[in-house]
Amino acid sequence: MELQLVGFSNSGKTTLIQYLTRELTKQGYRIGVIKHHHLPVPLDTPGKDSTTFLAAGAKATALLSPLEMKVQVARPYSLREMIANMYGVYGALDLLFIEGFKTESLPKLLLVRTKEEYQQLKTCLNIQGVAVWPTFKCEAHLLEGRPLFSVQQPEDLLIWVQQRLHQEQSSRLPTSTKPHDARDRTPPIPLFKSSESPVEG
Amino acid sequence: MELQLVGFSNSGKTTLIQYLTRELTKQGYRIGVIKHHHLPVPLDTPGKDSTTFLAAGAKATALLSPLEMKVQVARPYSLREMIANMYGVYGALDLLFIEGFKTESLPKLLLVRTKEEYQQLKTCLNIQGVAVWPTFKCEAHLLEGRPLFSVQQPEDLLIWVQQRLHQEQSSRLPTSTKPHDARDRTPPIPLFKSSESPVEG
Repeated sequence: MELQLVGFSNSGKTTLIQYLTRELTKQGYRIGVIKHHHLPVPLDTPGKDSTTFLAAGAKATALLSPLEMKVQVARPYSLREMIANMYGVYGALDLLFIEGFKTESLPKLLLVRTKEEYQQLKTCLNIQGVAVWPTFKCEAHLLEGRPLFSVQQPEDLLIWVQQRLHQEQSSRLPTSTKPHDARDRTPPIPLFKSSESPVEG
Repeated sequence: MELQLVGFSNSGKTTLIQYLTRELTKQGYRIGVIKHHHLPVPLDTPGKDSTTFLAAGAKATALLSPLEMKVQVARPYSLREMIANMYGVYGALDLLFIEGFKTESLPKLLLVRTKEEYQQLKTCLNIQGVAVWPTFKCEAHLLEGRPLFSVQQPEDLLIWVQQRLHQEQSSRLPTSTKPHDARDRTPPIPLFKSSESPVEG
């Protein structure tokens, strides 16, 4: 399952993904993250060996440690190709968070600080929810019925993501073994408190 | 085709791989590099988003830019698995340089500064050549007939690698189309000059 988190710079996307990854990992889910980097600059620190190998013309360079693997490839990847790689090559992931990629059509959570930001982002395809900062002046008609969350209540977003994961897992089960509660589950109750300080980041 | 470059720290492995990658890329070869990192520490800079996603429990995290793709996976990879990935996932590579991994059995070039270093490394499997620093006091019987190069003459190493690439490509061609010169090619002429300064790095 994929969930895009879309918003302008410093709207809290990375912090929210870190929070959700930490909490869902505790529950045994296997999480992956894909992040968009707008600038055509080397992705690794200048002077590092991988950067110099790529600068010398290498098409791909990998670093293996006792804990991790890192690979860099000297060509652009489409999001679709990368998603296929993430599931196919790097492990059986339950959920892939995708930070950025406004123009893609996967299920999306918007993070917005102001009405103006929302107006600019509301044309994104496949918006499933909107998480707002206290600086967002809520006008119900703007949201057109979309689930509304507060970035100050990330635990509500966690429940919402868990429900989406359960629904997806239920829909994969054969009908005879589908849990009874899957179709009766009540929708999430969005919360919004405008008086508190925003989530960090 | 794979070639391991094996030697102790600061023996010039990275500098030589950079040189060979640059020259072979100019000639149209597609080069990949795999490097060994001994320490069980995060491979990316602390504080970077990819590092924090992994610290939060993510199994894999990818960064996509208009030029490059970088992915980090939170588990160890064997060299064999990584080699398969490099050819299968990241492109049609002609040559994979492998820095380190002394105990692996792929064709190897040793880089040595002293007789003592050579004594420690000469038990490595599948040594195909030895590149020595001017500090290495040459005694012919030590080398047991192995091709000897000087790190101060990397162009000889370039020719040697090119010949290995040609031989491999010839061996893949059907007999009827194999070039006549492939089997008549003279072996490389190793050079050693002890009076010059070593290659940087």
